Amino acid sequence: MEPGLKNDGPSLDTILVNYLDTLTQRVNYHLGYPVNICYDHYATLAPLLQFHLNNCGDPFLQNTVDFHSKDFEVAVLDWFAQLWEIEKDQYWGYVTNGGTEGNLHGILLGRELLPEGILYASKDSHYSVFKAARMYRMDSETIKTSVNGEMDYSDLRAKLLQNKDKPAIINVTIGTTFKGAIDNVDVILETLKDCGYSQDRFYIHCDAALCGLMTPFINNMISFKKPIGSVTISGHKFLGCPMPCGVQITRKSYINNLSTNVEYIASVDATISGSRNGLTPIFLWYSLACKRPRDHEFVRRWQLSCVKDMAHVIVMPGITREMLDNFISELVQQRKVWYQNGKTNPPCVGEDIGAQNCACSYHKIDYISP
Amino acid sequence: MEPGLKNDGPSLDTILVNYLDTLTQRVNYHLGYPVNICYDHYATLAPLLQFHLNNCGDPFLQNTVDFHSKDFEVAVLDWFAQLWEIEKDQYWGYVTNGGTEGNLHGILLGRELLPEGILYASKDSHYSVFKAARMYRMDSETIKTSVNGEMDYSDLRAKLLQNKDKPAIINVTIGTTFKGAIDNVDVILETLKDCGYSQDRFYIHCDAALCGLMTPFINNMISFKKPIGSVTISGHKFLGCPMPCGVQITRKSYINNLSTNVEYIASVDATISGSRNGLTPIFLWYSLACKRPRDHEFVRRWQLSCVKDMAHVIVMPGITREMLDNFISELVQQRKVWYQNGKTNPPCVGEDIGAQNCACSYHKIDYISP
Repeated sequence: MEPGLKNDGPSLDTILVNYLDTLTQRVNYHLGYPVNICYDHYATLAPLLQFHLNNCGDPFLQNTVDFHSKDFEVAVLDWFAQLWEIEKDQYWGYVTNGGTEGNLHGILLGRELLPEGILYASKDSHYSVFKAARMYRMDSETIKTSVNGEMDYSDLRAKLLQNKDKPAIINVTIGTTFKGAIDNVDVILETLKDCGYSQDRFYIHCDAALCGLMTPFINNMISFKKPIGSVTISGHKFLGCPMPCGVQITRKSYINNLSTNVEYIASVDATISGSRNGLTPIFLWYSLACKRPRDHEFVRRWQLSCVKDMAHVIVMPGITREMLDNFISELVQQRKVWYQNGKTNPPCVGEDIGAQNCACSYHKIDYISP
Repeated sequence: MEPGLKNDGPSLDTILVNYLDTLTQRVNYHLGYPVNICYDHYATLAPLLQFHLNNCGDPFLQNTVDFHSKDFEVAVLDWFAQLWEIEKDQYWGYVTNGGTEGNLHGILLGRELLPEGILYASKDSHYSVFKAARMYRMDSETIKTSVNGEMDYSDLRAKLLQNKDKPAIINVTIGTTFKGAIDNVDVILETLKDCGYSQDRFYIHCDAALCGLMTPFINNMISFKKPIGSVTISGHKFLGCPMPCGVQITRKSYINNLSTNVEYIASVDATISGSRNGLTPIFLWYSLACKRPRDHEFVRRWQLSCVKDMAHVIVMPGITREMLDNFISELVQQRKVWYQNGKTNPPCVGEDIGAQNCACSYHKIDYISP
């Protein structure tokens, strides 16, 4: 049923109902793309659709209009800055319309800092990286990849040596679109050093669209403690969001530098989009917040201090047996709600407190087995 | 109340409820920006938030994923193509993330068609136009404006004559951000001709962000019957949408030309964003559809042919008095629903059928006054 804008078609409601039906059926057959296709929190957030929310321009500058969500946006950015190990007063960033906008922004930053720079990107890089080179009139070198899709570092080395007179702007892919391959930032940094590129003669943009939320938990691949320039992720892929979005984080000094040198781009607005979606920061914020302690009320009520998936109880002289009994009784009660009477599982904290002390379904079974 | 992502803050629900309260109160004090701040259809469309909808790449190419709204998008594009007088098989376009993306796309098209072209834009143009020039490494000329914000055509002429050896890419603003001034396309075309620029040596992009939906009803300012290259509007300003969006329309031949010459930009994806918001096309479609006959069921039931705000009844030999009585009786009944018992007004069709025949509130009063 085609949703035309002619008068002779079915009613609007019929078209919408049919469309929603199709989507509901097709959810069960979505295997081939790295997207979190369902958004669980939609009912809670639906009232936001009443308003036009526009985070126009810089997220850290307040608007004279109230219809934005910049406070939510900054909370999300702070979270990612912490994840990627850069201090609050050292970073700048914004919630983008998706991974492509992050790449367009990161590569533009590189070019503005190193105007003569050549863009190096592996052939498995996202196509938006080469699109950026074309848009920005930059010279570029395509680097070969291994069968698993990872950058061929010897080819990178050869091409860096060929172009030693020009600075290097390198796109590092943390999770290629098709094979999920991860280019190794450390090897790339080592290669740059070996080829004689000092830190003022290269810029590294990390396209972490898919894996930016995983790698920090596996190793410290993405960290601003290393001389990288920008990192971007897709918000809709791992976290889930009803529409495409992303996060771009870079060093504040680069944006300040832009503000001085590039009147038009940054003094007014250092983003690509200008008018920006005000809903996506709230969706991201809500998704992230829901992955923190499941029950804020409970945490507040018992004034618990939480770290990762843990909270502790401190038995000081003033604590009575009655207080502890009340706490335990409420905890047992609330756990039934949190884990839906055993339908979902508590998080594993075996690595933090020892497997024998962990009550997750895996360790609990392990413990009671013969 | 700050929406942080720490554990010690208020609950998520408290933060959201407070945020919605503030927005609801502030709606009454929104005077300074050209945005339709409230979106009436939110309840109907809220269920769409359950899914991640992504109109990745070209709207006219089908995805292998079902979670998109390209059929709705094409319906919206067709509507705008008709408004701006270009045939269905002659145009290409897409729903953008806002006016800025439309400008970035239009100016890029101009540059790809005329790589040596100089960008001409009045100083009252949107800042994204000069941002584009910087991003794309284009030479640009800023044209003076009159006190009302309109382009100074004698200054344009002087600068065109100075640069006669290079093609011209002209940004025409249809409704400047601050003063709402409209650059006159016809005068600009006349000036180009006078200065000796043939049609293959200029490209015109119309930034109609604000007024693109009004001008066609005032005069024929925007029409692809004139040698213009692209038109963009903001979807959220006049139509209303809970988040920024826009429409970009251009000539298909330009995109086909890109597809041949520019492997990376167009063969895969001729849009700027790549992953694209799948919700905004549905919001735009719904807003446009609601401005068509108020009651599709009624139109279908009586098989009426509608043009603009009019429908006619054809009394052929087979039509009985009884049929006409039934029709009139239903019409009178339904009008009470459509116009909420006189709380809202029927559209004015005085210009089409004569003031004395029009039943809008203005003409009706005029007619019955002494």
